[in-house]
Amino acid sequence: MTAAATQGIATRGFAVENKDAKFAPFEFARREVGPNDILVDILYSGICHSDIHQARAEWEPAVPSIFPMVPGHEIVGRVAKVGAEVIKFKEGGFAGIGCFMDSCGECGACTSDVEQFCEKGCAMTYNGTEMDRTTLTYGGYSKHYVVDQDYALKANFAEADLPGVAPLLCAGITSYSPLKRWGAGPGKKVAVAGLGGLGHMGVKLAAAMGAEVTVLSTSPSKEADAKKLGAHRFVNTRDDEARAVATGSFDIILNTISAQHEYGTYLSLLGLNGVMAIVGVPPAPVSVHALSLIAGNKTITGSMIGGIAETQEMLDFCAERGITSDVEIIDPSYIDEAYERTIRSDVRYRFVIDMKNA
Amino acid sequence: MTAAATQGIATRGFAVENKDAKFAPFEFARREVGPNDILVDILYSGICHSDIHQARAEWEPAVPSIFPMVPGHEIVGRVAKVGAEVIKFKEGGFAGIGCFMDSCGECGACTSDVEQFCEKGCAMTYNGTEMDRTTLTYGGYSKHYVVDQDYALKANFAEADLPGVAPLLCAGITSYSPLKRWGAGPGKKVAVAGLGGLGHMGVKLAAAMGAEVTVLSTSPSKEADAKKLGAHRFVNTRDDEARAVATGSFDIILNTISAQHEYGTYLSLLGLNGVMAIVGVPPAPVSVHALSLIAGNKTITGSMIGGIAETQEMLDFCAERGITSDVEIIDPSYIDEAYERTIRSDVRYRFVIDMKNA
Repeated sequence: MTAAATQGIATRGFAVENKDAKFAPFEFARREVGPNDILVDILYSGICHSDIHQARAEWEPAVPSIFPMVPGHEIVGRVAKVGAEVIKFKEGGFAGIGCFMDSCGECGACTSDVEQFCEKGCAMTYNGTEMDRTTLTYGGYSKHYVVDQDYALKANFAEADLPGVAPLLCAGITSYSPLKRWGAGPGKKVAVAGLGGLGHMGVKLAAAMGAEVTVLSTSPSKEADAKKLGAHRFVNTRDDEARAVATGSFDIILNTISAQHEYGTYLSLLGLNGVMAIVGVPPAPVSVHALSLIAGNKTITGSMIGGIAETQEMLDFCAERGITSDVEIIDPSYIDEAYERTIRSDVRYRFVIDMKNA
Repeated sequence: MTAAATQGIATRGFAVENKDAKFAPFEFARREVGPNDILVDILYSGICHSDIHQARAEWEPAVPSIFPMVPGHEIVGRVAKVGAEVIKFKEGGFAGIGCFMDSCGECGACTSDVEQFCEKGCAMTYNGTEMDRTTLTYGGYSKHYVVDQDYALKANFAEADLPGVAPLLCAGITSYSPLKRWGAGPGKKVAVAGLGGLGHMGVKLAAAMGAEVTVLSTSPSKEADAKKLGAHRFVNTRDDEARAVATGSFDIILNTISAQHEYGTYLSLLGLNGVMAIVGVPPAPVSVHALSLIAGNKTITGSMIGGIAETQEMLDFCAERGITSDVEIIDPSYIDEAYERTIRSDVRYRFVIDMKNA
């Protein structure tokens, strides 16, 4: 496959040509490095479940899929070139790129450091367009990315840690932001529901913040792993007795479950003024009885990734504490199989594509 | 009807003998005034929709109905007698009694000023038992009430205002508590969904807190009343255009709707980090799509009345600003008809029973 672009920086990625296709090499061009841009030589790119949804057009019509599609929004790499006015990055340093690569910069959301909610719609890192609404975006399953310095993150990690840093750009910030907002820390009891890509980061981050962490799962087999990740307790939510003991005991539940489930079961585990932060998206609406919120002044809240400033804060928090994602590094030729295994939750806990030699 | 009690203070109320009965006079006894107790000569008692649910056993089996039942938890009256150790009240002053008349006083909830969530279960003002779990409680549709001073509220209002003060003890605090918790005040846009007993107090209180207040209603005929109560704007939620204009515009929605409805419609009207506080209880669970919370970091939260300290704070707030409920004063003989009219929402905005001459 080859994209139509005839100018810019020639690069190579891995794309699907339609929703049923397998990944194949794809030649295309990145824009020239402008005065505020950096060119990133991509080293690692994480596989997020949302890549699969979009590559397979499962979110249409809400989110149209544009083909050929090069997914990937958990990107780390080495800065290969900086524009004339770039001060944030130096050549040779490490940079990250997350779910969006630009936004209007002027609206209420952008000026409040929540660019992910840009009123004009931010420029998604792939399967979207830049703010000109014309130039298509291609993601991190590729050799290079050109991005404005203000939408790239500094990744002050050792090179050896970079595979586990890539998933921080989506899974990390998605877990970090609600834990921070709702006060996870010493003296707080935090439960993490679901132990996948998001959940395993939730456990590590909540524990690092000083909270007492419990993993809630329907799979008793995950207990050992939960403890290894830093959880202090484990509750099998299918065990009536264990659930009864945990009733009313949590300040915060980070709900990462994307399978269809009932919120009521989890709300009953919250104490007074408890908060359940939703970061998993079950396919269909979930029903909630008003009384399950009213009894105990409880809260259900949603959270979507994070702005650039908070993402940088999260990366710095992780760098200082040596926190990275647990990953399985794969070759680009393995993407299709990694997708199948991700769907089966057969990964601990994130696939990361090694783009160095691709 | 006569209750079995053979000692204590003889009094008279209005009770239903079973779920299908009409109200009839009922002779019973209040406990003797203990050292920490006050005897209240009840002047006015509001009719709350929850009175109807319990009198008609509509909440069984979750909340069993105990008959004969004297409902009423929006009570104001004159202090007729004080116990030897009472310091909070003086004979001749006005006192209020709300939804509960005692609690354990020792648990985490009670010591955090949220006695409504007492871990032992607080003693409901009627259709329950005192903390001995034996003595039945009878409510405010009666001539007298004996209550511990710590569970009674000071009502520093003029006597002429007292009919409109009674509903503050339930409808008032139920609206006040979430508005306060979630920051209603100057610069905040608050919407009140539903304009009944709770909603009309929500409008008055949010406006008094300094917020810009909008009423959301399916009845365009309520616009004039909404403005009279202090609302700055009105949105007919069945009007697609008006709803589109209001999309993403509110910081807080106080949702008082007890009819079955969709939360999604209201969530779309919230701006970034917006909060919908649920105080109405639709009969069945309401379905919510995770994305309607995640897109915009939005929150649904429940709120149940308030503790004694906050109820006092609310009463003082109202007394200072001359805020009372809009009421229709009725004779006890009218209770059955008032129930029918309350069910039809044919009341602006609360029935209050005049117990003075009953």
